[in-house]
Amino acid sequence: MKSNENFYLYEDIAKKIANQISNGILPPGEKLPSVRKLSKELGVSVSTVVLSYISLENQGLIESKPQSGFYVRNLTWKTLPENDVINKSAVISRYESGTLISDVHEFSKITEMVSLGAGTPADDVLPIKEFKKILIQISKKSLDAGLMFEYPPGNIGLRKEIAKQSINIGCNFNPEDIIVTTGALEGIQLSLKILTKPGDIVLTEAPTYYLLLELLEKLNLKILSVPTHSKYGIDIELLESSLKKHKVATCLLYPTLNNPLGSIVPEESRKHIYSLITKYNVPLMEVNPYGELCYDKKPKAIKSFDNRSNVIYISSFSKVIAPGYRTGWMAPGKYYNELQKLQFLTSLSSPTITQLAIAEFLKKESYNRTIRNLRKTYDERTTFLGNLINQYFPAGTKFTKPQGGYYQWVELPENVNSTILQRQALEENISIAAGEMFSSKKDFNNYIRLSCAFPNWSNEKVEKAMKILGMLIKQGTYVHPI
Amino acid sequence: MKSNENFYLYEDIAKKIANQISNGILPPGEKLPSVRKLSKELGVSVSTVVLSYISLENQGLIESKPQSGFYVRNLTWKTLPENDVINKSAVISRYESGTLISDVHEFSKITEMVSLGAGTPADDVLPIKEFKKILIQISKKSLDAGLMFEYPPGNIGLRKEIAKQSINIGCNFNPEDIIVTTGALEGIQLSLKILTKPGDIVLTEAPTYYLLLELLEKLNLKILSVPTHSKYGIDIELLESSLKKHKVATCLLYPTLNNPLGSIVPEESRKHIYSLITKYNVPLMEVNPYGELCYDKKPKAIKSFDNRSNVIYISSFSKVIAPGYRTGWMAPGKYYNELQKLQFLTSLSSPTITQLAIAEFLKKESYNRTIRNLRKTYDERTTFLGNLINQYFPAGTKFTKPQGGYYQWVELPENVNSTILQRQALEENISIAAGEMFSSKKDFNNYIRLSCAFPNWSNEKVEKAMKILGMLIKQGTYVHPI
Repeated sequence: MKSNENFYLYEDIAKKIANQISNGILPPGEKLPSVRKLSKELGVSVSTVVLSYISLENQGLIESKPQSGFYVRNLTWKTLPENDVINKSAVISRYESGTLISDVHEFSKITEMVSLGAGTPADDVLPIKEFKKILIQISKKSLDAGLMFEYPPGNIGLRKEIAKQSINIGCNFNPEDIIVTTGALEGIQLSLKILTKPGDIVLTEAPTYYLLLELLEKLNLKILSVPTHSKYGIDIELLESSLKKHKVATCLLYPTLNNPLGSIVPEESRKHIYSLITKYNVPLMEVNPYGELCYDKKPKAIKSFDNRSNVIYISSFSKVIAPGYRTGWMAPGKYYNELQKLQFLTSLSSPTITQLAIAEFLKKESYNRTIRNLRKTYDERTTFLGNLINQYFPAGTKFTKPQGGYYQWVELPENVNSTILQRQALEENISIAAGEMFSSKKDFNNYIRLSCAFPNWSNEKVEKAMKILGMLIKQGTYVHPI
Repeated sequence: MKSNENFYLYEDIAKKIANQISNGILPPGEKLPSVRKLSKELGVSVSTVVLSYISLENQGLIESKPQSGFYVRNLTWKTLPENDVINKSAVISRYESGTLISDVHEFSKITEMVSLGAGTPADDVLPIKEFKKILIQISKKSLDAGLMFEYPPGNIGLRKEIAKQSINIGCNFNPEDIIVTTGALEGIQLSLKILTKPGDIVLTEAPTYYLLLELLEKLNLKILSVPTHSKYGIDIELLESSLKKHKVATCLLYPTLNNPLGSIVPEESRKHIYSLITKYNVPLMEVNPYGELCYDKKPKAIKSFDNRSNVIYISSFSKVIAPGYRTGWMAPGKYYNELQKLQFLTSLSSPTITQLAIAEFLKKESYNRTIRNLRKTYDERTTFLGNLINQYFPAGTKFTKPQGGYYQWVELPENVNSTILQRQALEENISIAAGEMFSSKKDFNNYIRLSCAFPNWSNEKVEKAMKILGMLIKQGTYVHPI
């Protein structure tokens, strides 16, 4: 790459070629210009063109043939419609997932499984080399190898780094605003403990994260589900009418990269949500474990509008760089002291060494490089998955390319029962997450969530799995016709 | 040390000299024989004698004068009576600790504080060198530097090591019997979640660990306190009558090294407790975070009598070798599957790297050496503290030397209010733990718990602090005469 060449140039080139493929200018089977030729044509370095071609290959758009060159893949280029909210009502209901959740995670442990079900970033994307270096560094420099307690609110070095980076979400936290937690889940549970009591109503999105729903159910909280849209976020009208109608103890939302939607609530709606929780004086839990993985710009947190300190912002490093470290954090505004005390009582402290390691990593330039690479990888993989859905899934399938993260939410034809599909797929060594899990209302029975983060990902394996999934879905369609 | 000389010989010699000091054969001010002379007299190596003298010095029994030798310290050798159970009733009551607990832990962070209040093993006793080596080892050998999830029940390597060692408590666990937790506190909370619902009665000891009491209170559980004796353990008659009278959801006991008593329930009573929980069909939570620190023999766990799997055994590495690692475990018998599922739901997983590191440490010979050294250190320190109590605390003080761990429970004269004492001591930069915290019944108002594990321990500092404490107690006695 020419030293003065923009590092991101190759992504632009890849996007232009991808467009030419999708609108037929470059038809299936067409040979792409040689690397050297395109390099001269565009006046960029050979390495830049190579990077572009690799990216297109990762997305499943082109393939290389040995000693010949790169060719547009022979996919049938239909583009499936985008999915939409199907239900326009907000209801209170109980949550039962049966064994669906444990099935997804139990089976993800089996090596030969293609684990499209669980979101488990693995060794092929995680910054293992960096953390190995950091462990050696801690071993040499730290006074106690992390053996001593780090009482709440947690390691000051880590809280400083988190505070520094908070500018990226429009906040300006001080280290004194932050409490380190053991994963985002600890932040969520501590907050629920102080904001709710059994029988209270918690307002969430539909769809939303299944472990959250099961947790609310276990805590004997009532789940009030408000539909959320993959482009516009939670339905504002229903949000307001729900807040008016019910005594809501807290709103628990994922405005940035909702799991499973991968959607980002636009800034206008964020302001609207903030004005509503202020008007009805309902505390907001803004949970954002995936925010670093936005493919484009990171949005401002709703917390950034929060002058009255009624928003508990909850985040984590667990879903992005270090699942096994279980390190999360929260900025709980006026609930700071109460939460810090409760954390001491229930956990004594979060582990020290993981806090030290993450603090070190945040200080390094390699952190930003790692995040850039992760975004790029997941962006490519979800595009790859999208192409396979286009190719192999039947008519009636709808999906929207996510705006970040590693999940793809797919709406299957109405007559498909994805819970049955999940069971059938397991027999083929493919795990998927059935839509039923993502709502207490059971209104996503023909949806599935596919994950692009699991051990031993390979394009070949995934394509094979998607082909089988497509066949199973089509079979299902024939067996249970509309 | 002669190579064939028993490593423990020096402890025997130290004990004999300690006896001679306490029964006046070696009076205060007496010079001890020179190291060389005693070595010849006893036919042991010079190093063995040096080790004996250092041990006696650590216990505060002798002092070295430069270029002169070792002398018996000028302490007034009164031995204070042992304490006893003062209350013979089992009652249900609520727990309120006010700011006492946070005071103890907040102030332990101040460097100049002599933190006799909190139990926080520090860099002077923890196996830091060993763990630094292990971190480097993990960095080199592990595939993922602990970055990937380790779903419940936790790392198989660690569970294997725990299972191997379970023979020491009379159990014969398989790795499949063990669930790794984030500290013993997670095990306690998960177990309480499945065994109780708000309003239920939990039977505990009085005195017992204050964080446990505050936790039970937060969970809206009713605390039924049964007195426990520093020699005989929980009052068996009252235990039985309580189980008969009340619908107890679970018994939550620390039969080995009760905190604050440092006592061990004798085997006969353990069998009795087991037969009672079986008779009344009440699940037992047997919590044992300090068991490795028994100065003499480790007792059999009540769990070892458990054929019916109605005992949840809960332990931790946190209080002994690695506070900041927050790694604990449990052997929950028939509750295994339910607890494993609940842990997944509430924590997703316990951190991976701490599990890897502890598993490595348990495999090494240095683990046993570390535990031996810890036992010896705390045994010496509690003896040292006992001598200072004998010397500086007023008549009416009673205490029993603990059988392990790092806490000394002290009964002060009846008219002393230890909650006021805690506040007064803080002003002198001394933290202690007031007895009130250790019971919901408020019947330990003239007791204190002193800890021998805190950062920057030194005999000089501790002696100075104990002298001041003694004066404060005496002043209190004069101000509020009986």
